[in-house]
Amino acid sequence: MARQDGPSPRTTLRRGASRAVYETDAVRSILDAGVIAHVGVITDDGPIVLPMAYGVRGDGEDAEVLIHGAVANAMMRAGRELDVCVTVTIVDGLVLARTPFHNSMNYRSVVVRGTAHAIDAPDDKLTALQIINDHVAPTWDTARPPSTTDVKKTLVLAVPLAEASAKVRAGDPVDEDIDMDGPHWAGVVPLTSTWGDAQPAGDLRGAPSIPAVVTALAGRDAHQQTRPE
Amino acid sequence: MARQDGPSPRTTLRRGASRAVYETDAVRSILDAGVIAHVGVITDDGPIVLPMAYGVRGDGEDAEVLIHGAVANAMMRAGRELDVCVTVTIVDGLVLARTPFHNSMNYRSVVVRGTAHAIDAPDDKLTALQIINDHVAPTWDTARPPSTTDVKKTLVLAVPLAEASAKVRAGDPVDEDIDMDGPHWAGVVPLTSTWGDAQPAGDLRGAPSIPAVVTALAGRDAHQQTRPE
Repeated sequence: MARQDGPSPRTTLRRGASRAVYETDAVRSILDAGVIAHVGVITDDGPIVLPMAYGVRGDGEDAEVLIHGAVANAMMRAGRELDVCVTVTIVDGLVLARTPFHNSMNYRSVVVRGTAHAIDAPDDKLTALQIINDHVAPTWDTARPPSTTDVKKTLVLAVPLAEASAKVRAGDPVDEDIDMDGPHWAGVVPLTSTWGDAQPAGDLRGAPSIPAVVTALAGRDAHQQTRPE
Repeated sequence: MARQDGPSPRTTLRRGASRAVYETDAVRSILDAGVIAHVGVITDDGPIVLPMAYGVRGDGEDAEVLIHGAVANAMMRAGRELDVCVTVTIVDGLVLARTPFHNSMNYRSVVVRGTAHAIDAPDDKLTALQIINDHVAPTWDTARPPSTTDVKKTLVLAVPLAEASAKVRAGDPVDEDIDMDGPHWAGVVPLTSTWGDAQPAGDLRGAPSIPAVVTALAGRDAHQQTRPE
């Protein structure tokens, strides 16, 4: 990320600033732990937000979030300069205070604002597609490689992480003094997302073996940190 | 919802139309099963997408999605006509095809586009806040009621469901004929989000009992359908 000294004006959070963390490591570890992104663009009919697969490549100032697919095509057809917002959120729990005004959620989120650019060079595009594909489970190498036509059909976009901010809430509710001796319960209900056992497709022929990376998902927390810090 | 005969032009999906379902029931059941929304608005610096709690009220043509809080305040301060997009996504699994070009995810999502309006009448606002609070777990009645000041401080927005569309992908990957006799595995890895056991706050005094609705969350699929169809 370009800045070590704080967020850019448009990623500064006006409220809840104490929850904001701007460190590169936080942004990266949350992006690594997420499963999908919600991507916002502006259309003639107002904003639209769509769920998309994503990946992350590069380090430091060159780091980018990568998105792709049919949705990207629709966005590009709009013919605009493509300002986007890519948001990744992991909900870690429900925070229940003594009064609903202080209820909250524990979560980790990253907001990436910036201008998306298309990745055109075939080799670069292929690498980007592999990174997106392998974000959750690295199955690229054990599948049939994509054809040149497949790659041509897919649009891949990159958004610099230069203007990324992370926000994390963890721990207990924060209640008011007047409520501390009251009769009301307070606490946290954790939320965990877990991959299940791989279910072979109904039309599977023969007995192809399940890739080890797929077997390894079973029982795993989908939002655990997978990248060495 | 206003239309029974199809989506409005701006919610028509140009691709993947076979996955699109427009029925009121699908929209409502997905909104009922979601935990958070990703809300997109347009700012002077481009689109921004933020995670928010939400609720749903009303039926048929009067149904609305409700959002609130500090973020809504920031949005309102922008002084624009508030075109928003409220997107709720539940990821149900990873879809692994014989080639990565056909990889996908199983998911349920709803995209609500429209103009948000503030709910101002105090009684109406209080009811709306309760609906948002009780979306995941109805804890409103067992907590200390919010003060008049708390309610005044909170901005609540409603977005009509008139222009809502649902999109669902379920089941096996769809591969190409040329890959069916190949050596590559294909299948689905399910993803399940589960509430855990309630963890009492560290600063709890006395022994207030845990509300039954909180205890009932433990072990429950966070995205199960909770509303009678």
